[in-house]
Amino acid sequence: MGLPIKLATEAKRAQGLDRLLDAKSVAIIGMSSKPQSAGQIVLKNLRENSFPGAVHLVGRTPGVIDGLSVMTDMAELPPGVDLAVLTVPAASVEATLDACMARDVGSAIVFASGFAETGEEGRREQERIGGRVRAGGMVVVGPNCLGFTNYAAGFSITFVGVNKVPAMPQGTHDAVAIVSQSGGLANHLRHGLNARGVAVSYNISTGNEMDLGLGDFVDHLVDDAATQVIMIYAEDIRRPDVFLAAAARARGMGKPLVMLFPGRSPRAQEAAKSHTGALAGDYAVMKAKVERAGVHLVDTLDEFMDVAEILSRYPAPSRGGLGILTFSGAFCGIAHDFCDDMGVEIPALSAATEAELKALLPAFISPRNPIDLGTEAVWRPELVGAGVAALLKEPAIGAVAISIPIVSPAHAKAYVEQVVAARGESTKPVAMAMLGDQLPLPPEFVEIARASKVIVSRSSDRVLKALSRIVRQPDPRPAPPAAGPMQARDLPKGTLPEWLGKSLLAGEGIRILGGRLVRTLDEARAAAEAVGFPVVIKAQAGALAHKTEAGGVILNLADADALVAAWTTLHANIARAQPGLVLDGVLVEKMSPKGLELVVGGRRDPRWGPVVLIGLGGIMVEALGDVRLVAADASREEFVAEFGKLKASKMLYGFRNQPPVDVEAAADVAVAIGRLLQATPEITDVEINPLMVYERGRGAVALDALIVSAGS
Amino acid sequence: MGLPIKLATEAKRAQGLDRLLDAKSVAIIGMSSKPQSAGQIVLKNLRENSFPGAVHLVGRTPGVIDGLSVMTDMAELPPGVDLAVLTVPAASVEATLDACMARDVGSAIVFASGFAETGEEGRREQERIGGRVRAGGMVVVGPNCLGFTNYAAGFSITFVGVNKVPAMPQGTHDAVAIVSQSGGLANHLRHGLNARGVAVSYNISTGNEMDLGLGDFVDHLVDDAATQVIMIYAEDIRRPDVFLAAAARARGMGKPLVMLFPGRSPRAQEAAKSHTGALAGDYAVMKAKVERAGVHLVDTLDEFMDVAEILSRYPAPSRGGLGILTFSGAFCGIAHDFCDDMGVEIPALSAATEAELKALLPAFISPRNPIDLGTEAVWRPELVGAGVAALLKEPAIGAVAISIPIVSPAHAKAYVEQVVAARGESTKPVAMAMLGDQLPLPPEFVEIARASKVIVSRSSDRVLKALSRIVRQPDPRPAPPAAGPMQARDLPKGTLPEWLGKSLLAGEGIRILGGRLVRTLDEARAAAEAVGFPVVIKAQAGALAHKTEAGGVILNLADADALVAAWTTLHANIARAQPGLVLDGVLVEKMSPKGLELVVGGRRDPRWGPVVLIGLGGIMVEALGDVRLVAADASREEFVAEFGKLKASKMLYGFRNQPPVDVEAAADVAVAIGRLLQATPEITDVEINPLMVYERGRGAVALDALIVSAGS
Repeated sequence: MGLPIKLATEAKRAQGLDRLLDAKSVAIIGMSSKPQSAGQIVLKNLRENSFPGAVHLVGRTPGVIDGLSVMTDMAELPPGVDLAVLTVPAASVEATLDACMARDVGSAIVFASGFAETGEEGRREQERIGGRVRAGGMVVVGPNCLGFTNYAAGFSITFVGVNKVPAMPQGTHDAVAIVSQSGGLANHLRHGLNARGVAVSYNISTGNEMDLGLGDFVDHLVDDAATQVIMIYAEDIRRPDVFLAAAARARGMGKPLVMLFPGRSPRAQEAAKSHTGALAGDYAVMKAKVERAGVHLVDTLDEFMDVAEILSRYPAPSRGGLGILTFSGAFCGIAHDFCDDMGVEIPALSAATEAELKALLPAFISPRNPIDLGTEAVWRPELVGAGVAALLKEPAIGAVAISIPIVSPAHAKAYVEQVVAARGESTKPVAMAMLGDQLPLPPEFVEIARASKVIVSRSSDRVLKALSRIVRQPDPRPAPPAAGPMQARDLPKGTLPEWLGKSLLAGEGIRILGGRLVRTLDEARAAAEAVGFPVVIKAQAGALAHKTEAGGVILNLADADALVAAWTTLHANIARAQPGLVLDGVLVEKMSPKGLELVVGGRRDPRWGPVVLIGLGGIMVEALGDVRLVAADASREEFVAEFGKLKASKMLYGFRNQPPVDVEAAADVAVAIGRLLQATPEITDVEINPLMVYERGRGAVALDALIVSAGS
Repeated sequence: MGLPIKLATEAKRAQGLDRLLDAKSVAIIGMSSKPQSAGQIVLKNLRENSFPGAVHLVGRTPGVIDGLSVMTDMAELPPGVDLAVLTVPAASVEATLDACMARDVGSAIVFASGFAETGEEGRREQERIGGRVRAGGMVVVGPNCLGFTNYAAGFSITFVGVNKVPAMPQGTHDAVAIVSQSGGLANHLRHGLNARGVAVSYNISTGNEMDLGLGDFVDHLVDDAATQVIMIYAEDIRRPDVFLAAAARARGMGKPLVMLFPGRSPRAQEAAKSHTGALAGDYAVMKAKVERAGVHLVDTLDEFMDVAEILSRYPAPSRGGLGILTFSGAFCGIAHDFCDDMGVEIPALSAATEAELKALLPAFISPRNPIDLGTEAVWRPELVGAGVAALLKEPAIGAVAISIPIVSPAHAKAYVEQVVAARGESTKPVAMAMLGDQLPLPPEFVEIARASKVIVSRSSDRVLKALSRIVRQPDPRPAPPAAGPMQARDLPKGTLPEWLGKSLLAGEGIRILGGRLVRTLDEARAAAEAVGFPVVIKAQAGALAHKTEAGGVILNLADADALVAAWTTLHANIARAQPGLVLDGVLVEKMSPKGLELVVGGRRDPRWGPVVLIGLGGIMVEALGDVRLVAADASREEFVAEFGKLKASKMLYGFRNQPPVDVEAAADVAVAIGRLLQATPEITDVEINPLMVYERGRGAVALDALIVSAGS
């Protein structure tokens, strides 16, 4: 009463997620008398799992179902029910949600499809309704979702099949929560995790996300004591700011996020659109942002499961290379090739560890990584323990993979006991790939392994791939310095003329060529004398986008005579190319010495905000797409590392007998571009092409500048 | 007696492989009284499997073991035993083999390690002994091997563990034979295949290959009626000619070969060296040659197993894209991304199939590939059959992957029955990836699937990867036209001067620039007039390797005056760079118009013979290694396809508003280089850098030619 309306709705929405996922009272709306109807299945699921709270039924036809009378008017619903489950068709969703809000319902779930996944009209309808519920203070899951399961409370809200919810043991603290825009996939994930002995805390299908989205659920689940890892299946992150904030909280609390997001290929983006109404965003931008936020972004279903399982048992960050123990020399070569493809090291052992191992191993086994025990461990299982302990001790090793045959159940047991003992309290992941593929594993072996967090797999490919993904994760970055307040600069709308763009770059500390904007030939002569011949002259006007093509750039003018001739030519060219164009003037610049041409730029993604792009100039960008997208608040060190990941990065480090170039200076330019984009809201695009970079220590100079402004 | 010795030994060796793998009599040599000694384990394995043939024991200490007396002198051994099993140490191997040959033994197996895997000395020793046995007419497996198992005859010759050999059912015709340079790995493969219900015919560990190598066994096994697929684990193909000939025979008989060969990375090559004494060859050359011979070269262990299993059930070549049927919209996007990474299509359905499917499917399921049945198949399993049948009918689809949840055993059964019925007699692989990961599969489901060749997997990643590998295999090539007889051309040894190199290229029909080799300025003037200004002049001498760096190339001479000045400069430059060098003369050539620069070359690999290399010129080759190695007898069409696989291939097809270049002409040049290498034994290296290629239809011109000759 006393609260302003806005505050009241926000406070109410803040409780909404608890009231949804841990509902104490449920109203099933759209109840039909047909036993296989969605509403009846929802009810059966509540009964099957002995849901202890109040259950209310609302439908068109009065009657009694399973001992409960069906109300035919929403007005009969007692006020303040936690969760309304809408089993009504799409056309009735809006009115039903309105009625729920009128009865002060805390949260609702909408199963109906027929919204954004059907096209633009459905999308608008969905957005409009979403706006209404947000204004009304209720939270809504769906539409086009399959529901959710709370494994701690032991109940499930779903209309697909009736299932007894396997209870999560009390005191669980290493469970995986699943938040998925695909309900079908979420169920497979849950089954798979349980089959691996991994507890699942929640399984939430978010569907089209009219209101609540992935970020809201992640933010909520981060505080759940049972949940250690959150698996996210996404086709569209609709509110990146909410998602990234939740990811930051998760990282702060040591709770890893693992995400699968199809959409690297255009056809996957199309598929997502007709599946959950996902709008194809820029995958590369999303990847740059979420990976920097510490999310483990995986590429395939197997990786998704494997990485989630490992992180549920080993949540602490673990970086470095892989330690490998094997019973077959063949596997050493196979592992080297595999890790080389993955970009992960198999580090050499330190001298101390090597000496220690040498003393323990028979003479014919080399104390090196991979450790190849051959058939020796068949007789001396303690060698397995010695090897694993040695590998885990190495600081350069982030995880250990063991490739092992099942010789006999007794052998398998002896090996795993060795591994468990050697592992001790290490937080580095240890995984045993049990070769022989579909042969059954001795159950006792699996029990011992799981009780001590040793990962068991049937595929060395999968073990190597998942561990590589985990140990390759970059170091967590310090929280970026709070970017100064955004400040509009009153820039004109459209492409800025080069001289203006360069002045903005210079303001960020980026080196530009010595030069002056002139209006007369006399001024041009004076400018050329001042900066020193040879010079280049460039026509300047915001409306002159392709100045080179228009003949507005004349290079390499050796002396005053050449300058005079070029001045006339340039103006004639412009008059021909764009008659009537009034130039801001002509930029006279000193010719730059030859260096290596890079491209550094950036853009403001409409959803994800600013990103910086770096690449090697010229055909490398166009013919190979050899660029890296990086978060705009990345540090110099991060940009230096990103330059090193370019496909043609060789060219930076002393190519064809040239000295290495000043990658650090190029990184500084990238940092400055990121800063400019973060600080200046009206700038949408920046491109320095080329950024001429010189020998290490000699810096980099922006030869051109293309900045696009959306206007203030 | 009447036969010349050489023929007799060859004839004897030809029978040797039969006498080895299907031995009717065995002598165990180096028999010890210790129960766990290698000889005793070999004997126990024979007994365990009721080996029906004669068994003889030879050892130092007389006595009776398991009812057999131990002979202490090889001279007591009855002559003509099929197989001698040497359990003697490395130092006694040579003398023992000699003694075997003296007793007319047909074949021998050597377990001892201590040869090529220990270093150069061991390698020489091994080669010397190998030469002796070949001259003596015996065949030998090993050293450093684990033995072999013949599953048809039901016996095993090995010293590692005593095992009952699971008999291969009589009449088996789809078995996999395993030939492996690693015995340990071979055992895991065998277990894995059997666990998948795939029969194994032979499991052979070839070790260091003193005598018999992979190619010999492949050649032998191709004729085995039970064997359908041969799995080859290789670290070194010691005799490529034997191997490729065997591969050609296998292809001719419709028996696929699947090979895993670690060594893509330098560290894998090192590992192989200390494992089986493998010498690092050129992996890329090997790959080009064996893939062209039709071998399925896989990258990882999982792929190795999966591809072998699929080919054992579907040996007929099957090319195209993948058809996909799924129960989850999420999987459509995941599959698109996966196939995009693999370079495999998910082809659109033909209009006819689309119409047909539309009539069968409910309105809300789109008749497209992937077919997403959502949860509909839970109620209407017949939709699974309709979908699979439609996909299999499409000519553009080479294999079908089904991603499916195990809803219940009854559902799983219904689905697989649908798949079996829909498959009919199709020879296209069909695989079901049963999601839910480590959940057990209903045994009945597995039985039905296997009985009808439907592949069952627990991982959609693995299914998509293995099927992609199979359907991507290029079309079989017609046997290359018998290259004319090699003919030495009396070329001088070393790097040929450009003019001579170019004359060889021109002889193969490759366009070179109009030009003349001249010795005087007058001749130069005349040549320039004849070819037309502007011209380039280039100093010519075999001993002048880096003519550009020496100042021996002067470009773009516009007229006679420029030519005169350049003539003097060029000779002064050469005199300074390489005093006393006598030039063959100076090449005067017309300047070429600008085109796109390619590199086309080739080399003679010491083991694999000639290969052709193609790439984009300049930094693409050096900074990115963006080249393709291709068999020297490849066709124009194959080279055109290979150009399309360059990472920067975009540059060929209309880059930056340029017209597409004449890739066909470049392919013709590659064919010509291949022909030149095949026909001219003394040429070791060829490089045309650059090959200037023009707009489509305008051809390609060799601007330079570097040919190295080993001398005649």
